[in-house]
Amino acid sequence: MSETNLQVLLASRPQGWPTESNFSIVETPLPEPRAGEVLVRNHYLSLDPYMRWRMNDAKSYATPVALGEVMVGRTVGEVVTSNNSKFKPGDKVIGYLGWQLSGVSDGANLQVVADSKLPLSAYLGVLGMPGATAWIGLMDICAPKAGQTVLVTAASGAVGSVVGQLAKIHGARVVGIAGGRDKCRYVIEELGFDACIDYKAGTLRPDINAATPTGIDCLFENVGGEIFDSLLPRMNAFSRIAICGLISEYNSEPYPLKNIGSVLINRIKIQGFIVSDHMERWPLAHQELREHLTSGRIKYRESVAHGLRAAPAALIGLLKGQNFGKQLVKLI
Amino acid sequence: MSETNLQVLLASRPQGWPTESNFSIVETPLPEPRAGEVLVRNHYLSLDPYMRWRMNDAKSYATPVALGEVMVGRTVGEVVTSNNSKFKPGDKVIGYLGWQLSGVSDGANLQVVADSKLPLSAYLGVLGMPGATAWIGLMDICAPKAGQTVLVTAASGAVGSVVGQLAKIHGARVVGIAGGRDKCRYVIEELGFDACIDYKAGTLRPDINAATPTGIDCLFENVGGEIFDSLLPRMNAFSRIAICGLISEYNSEPYPLKNIGSVLINRIKIQGFIVSDHMERWPLAHQELREHLTSGRIKYRESVAHGLRAAPAALIGLLKGQNFGKQLVKLI
Repeated sequence: MSETNLQVLLASRPQGWPTESNFSIVETPLPEPRAGEVLVRNHYLSLDPYMRWRMNDAKSYATPVALGEVMVGRTVGEVVTSNNSKFKPGDKVIGYLGWQLSGVSDGANLQVVADSKLPLSAYLGVLGMPGATAWIGLMDICAPKAGQTVLVTAASGAVGSVVGQLAKIHGARVVGIAGGRDKCRYVIEELGFDACIDYKAGTLRPDINAATPTGIDCLFENVGGEIFDSLLPRMNAFSRIAICGLISEYNSEPYPLKNIGSVLINRIKIQGFIVSDHMERWPLAHQELREHLTSGRIKYRESVAHGLRAAPAALIGLLKGQNFGKQLVKLI
Repeated sequence: MSETNLQVLLASRPQGWPTESNFSIVETPLPEPRAGEVLVRNHYLSLDPYMRWRMNDAKSYATPVALGEVMVGRTVGEVVTSNNSKFKPGDKVIGYLGWQLSGVSDGANLQVVADSKLPLSAYLGVLGMPGATAWIGLMDICAPKAGQTVLVTAASGAVGSVVGQLAKIHGARVVGIAGGRDKCRYVIEELGFDACIDYKAGTLRPDINAATPTGIDCLFENVGGEIFDSLLPRMNAFSRIAICGLISEYNSEPYPLKNIGSVLINRIKIQGFIVSDHMERWPLAHQELREHLTSGRIKYRESVAHGLRAAPAALIGLLKGQNFGKQLVKLI
């Protein structure tokens, strides 16, 4: 292992869509772990839509990344040096070490992967934050009953794909919305959704009507904008909307919503949520998702960018929907 | 009492704002109660914003009024003739007999007023549907803690005035939004709100910021539109919004909402509700409100139109915010 580290820093704040020039890639000395700390060599970096928010200097649920700081992100890797009795060299660990090849942690945000039967990258997807997000939003907020219709946007993504498969396991009728025929085919044929709407087909509203003949009881919303506005009138009485993300609005002016009246007419409950507020639910979510994953009831797909230098373009691609499944950056 | 009845029928469906020509006033024979039925002479008719919805032929939570039918509405009055053992002539009753001087009921929607110490009209306000609406939306959906900030729109109205006074009783800091200086003065000086924003003053957003220095924990929304959109960014983390009405949108194209992103950033819970879905809560709401009313902790004000023929103009005035407090039509 080299004695230098590679890091991606936030170089400037984007106005609208980020570009690669908003990032800078720097070589730095390999950090030295102090007493109580461990040095971790990251194997995978997770790329997720929330990162776009952190690039803004605006009020949000979390502190923005400062200019010149390493971009934040979840990672999986291996302990190289440990000055902390909870970790030993060779331990596979899940962390929050950001966009860099190696990172130092005091162990607070580091978790040893006990079970090595599953690929390490799964701990950034179904078994990580996206899986917990899907589980909490679906089970705790939407709480669909068997036979009800669950609609999930960004259906082929890291979160949406778990939402839909979990909802099927729990007996719901599941409709996805995804961008393009390939994603829709995957969502139906591989993930077992009942229907999928290709929002790029240009016939969004009639397609929504056709795919939800008995309306929508639970909407798991990852996208926002025109899609969200088109779904609101299809919501049933006493339906639930879990707002998990609004990716269509992260890089542009907000889409003007017209159909909020449906919330009153249909007595809809809307709940915005951030998975990190619900850490007490992660162990149960994780346990159930692990069982579904090992039994093959839940499948996943990954888009893997190779090398840290590819991370900025991969994040931009993710924000444009160019990924297919969980977006990762492979660092070894 | 005359042998004829007077009724207001829905003559045509409004496009946008209703006009008096959408109603027709007819004299009809006094109805004859059959076996099990009672004849009631109405003393007051309640006018409420929901009536505008019933004039539309559109999907909603309730059936539209058919053309040529008597307009629906809550009433208080006195039993004249009874063929039902539960009622006797002279009983004061709360009913749902609509826009007419006299009506017949099988007793299902009729309730005898046991306590004659309070004015009968209060059973259409604080002790009726508006009071129950305020109580359920505030206590069950918003559930403010002592010291939290509750904001209520249409603050001087039948619902808003109860919301604010109840919230004060429960220890909240209470901010109202109302139309005009007189209403704002009333809301602060008579009802005891901590602050009031006059949305007609032309400085809505800075006034909201000034009146909510620590943000908003509970929004009781009666209005919608630009006011609602301006309030969304002021919502605190884990705040609640009870959507009770969207009166600004009942007669026009919906205002395009821009700030829905706050629901995600601040993990807001929004719940649309209709009071008639929560009948099991009415007895408790009624009991508490009666105590507050008799003890003087809750005050109210009424706008009274005189005579059934004045009802159409009074409803139109209500939709324009021309009433001050609970809008009634006096029928005797």
